[in-house]
Amino acid sequence: MKILITGGAGFLGQRLAKRLLERGTLDGQPVTELVLLDVARPADATLLSDARVRAETGDISDRAVLDRLIDTDTQAIFHLAAIVSGQAEADFDLGMRINLDASRALLEACRSAGHAPRVVFTSSVAVYGGTLPDVVQDDTALNPQSSYGTQKAIAELLLCDYARRGFVDGRVLRLPTISVRPGKPNAAASSFASGIIREPLNGERSTCPVDGETRLWLLSPQSAIDALIAGCELDRATLGNRPVVNLPGLSVSVNEMVAALREVAGDEAVARIDWQRDERIGKIVESWPGAWNTSRAEQLGLTGDASFADVIRAYISEQRA
Amino acid sequence: MKILITGGAGFLGQRLAKRLLERGTLDGQPVTELVLLDVARPADATLLSDARVRAETGDISDRAVLDRLIDTDTQAIFHLAAIVSGQAEADFDLGMRINLDASRALLEACRSAGHAPRVVFTSSVAVYGGTLPDVVQDDTALNPQSSYGTQKAIAELLLCDYARRGFVDGRVLRLPTISVRPGKPNAAASSFASGIIREPLNGERSTCPVDGETRLWLLSPQSAIDALIAGCELDRATLGNRPVVNLPGLSVSVNEMVAALREVAGDEAVARIDWQRDERIGKIVESWPGAWNTSRAEQLGLTGDASFADVIRAYISEQRA
Repeated sequence: MKILITGGAGFLGQRLAKRLLERGTLDGQPVTELVLLDVARPADATLLSDARVRAETGDISDRAVLDRLIDTDTQAIFHLAAIVSGQAEADFDLGMRINLDASRALLEACRSAGHAPRVVFTSSVAVYGGTLPDVVQDDTALNPQSSYGTQKAIAELLLCDYARRGFVDGRVLRLPTISVRPGKPNAAASSFASGIIREPLNGERSTCPVDGETRLWLLSPQSAIDALIAGCELDRATLGNRPVVNLPGLSVSVNEMVAALREVAGDEAVARIDWQRDERIGKIVESWPGAWNTSRAEQLGLTGDASFADVIRAYISEQRA
Repeated sequence: MKILITGGAGFLGQRLAKRLLERGTLDGQPVTELVLLDVARPADATLLSDARVRAETGDISDRAVLDRLIDTDTQAIFHLAAIVSGQAEADFDLGMRINLDASRALLEACRSAGHAPRVVFTSSVAVYGGTLPDVVQDDTALNPQSSYGTQKAIAELLLCDYARRGFVDGRVLRLPTISVRPGKPNAAASSFASGIIREPLNGERSTCPVDGETRLWLLSPQSAIDALIAGCELDRATLGNRPVVNLPGLSVSVNEMVAALREVAGDEAVARIDWQRDERIGKIVESWPGAWNTSRAEQLGLTGDASFADVIRAYISEQRA
């Protein structure tokens, strides 16, 4: 089975690639070729040394790049490439080009190939916004309050229509905010949701730009990768006329995140958090839901994390390994 | 005030133009120039003879056409141009080009002009679909089951984000199915909703392609025009972070439509309806809601029709005049 991962040099892309290589199969078929498309080659040398891996650099909004990489052997595509929320808000045209136009170009490349490949598209809490119930339901309207959320919502609609018409076997997985991400802060409005845990654990200071009462909907990287693979392996028929799944998460306030950090790493770590509100970030993050109903995901066998303290512990043990 | 109507040679476009010329003002300002853009010139000679009217032909998906017609004097735009549901389902690329790409090009032309003109975008019952409550609520998720509905839903999202960013003063008016339309059948899946009334009144036979129990959400052309103008004149601040309004309609089953026809025009008219199910049409039309909550529209002062028998009577008296 040939698999394409867009955003394949990114944090989730590389992790997903490693997991697929370790498993050796997807949907019961051997992984024979894993194409990682991104603007740069993946940093992970172990990944690149695997004979099944083919790292490709190129602009994902360039249809010619996609046509070259997607052929009738491409049986599964994980479309992870995106401009993150903060950057899409700051650079509207870039967000439109990558989050919308490139998603459409990818769907068109699949349609041209003609074999209806499986396409897993990652969406986000950011498709919701405005006046929301405490717990978002599967039938709650999308009302994004950021350009990133708008672009993700549009790509969802496109994917659903391409799936309905039989151009792709598409599924949309709406991801909670991923925490704890390793590495450096990024331009996502939610970057702090990893930073306020990661930096204090590394002995560095970190600034929290939102109020402690702000409720986030979180998923660990490990569980996100599990969900991507399980979502790809779902039988299409179980999804009915709505191939969109809100993935399970943990509903945790920032204060509760800090309490979990204290539980795991003590007062010293917590003292490294500076509280300084940033209106630009607060406005985006506070428009997102703090929880959504996960019953459909659970019925489909998709699971999340047990507790945020466990998520922090898993992050620490992974960093040590 | 200079006003642009896209789809200005269409049924609603010409009607809206005539009403605006009769009123002489929009939002308290005199209508000085009314640009009607369409693929052809309007058929109505009276309309064309008005010195304020400028008929322009061109491809609305051509950005150069839009840039030529939208300048800083353009204070209001009614974006009515669309490929109807049946045609957008039959010709996917054409629907994408007109319903999606042209809408985006129009928003981009407004953004370039830089004065945030008022843009009224007409959307549709077709943005809803799948498993729906008996009465769709303002916060019911969009789950379109046609390419037309998908393209309308995407254009809504674009317009809302362009409005949020201050590129346009946008408002989305979701129209019920318009009935009774004068003239000929068209490629809309809902074409029969006018045909089964109009043709029998003209002494002609008409085929109903859906079951009598099918519930439709209807609005007369007169009330649709009233709502477009009222929607354009709404104070932006009253719309909050969600400039989308579900317009009032009448929830009427096809059997009830036929009963209203009998009430107004007798058994002889009703006998001219042939019942022959068409799966392609039924599948699209039956995915649409039969009613939605109209409380927000009513709070905003937008009203609909009293009864479907009254709608038929208004159609007859207009045709006589």
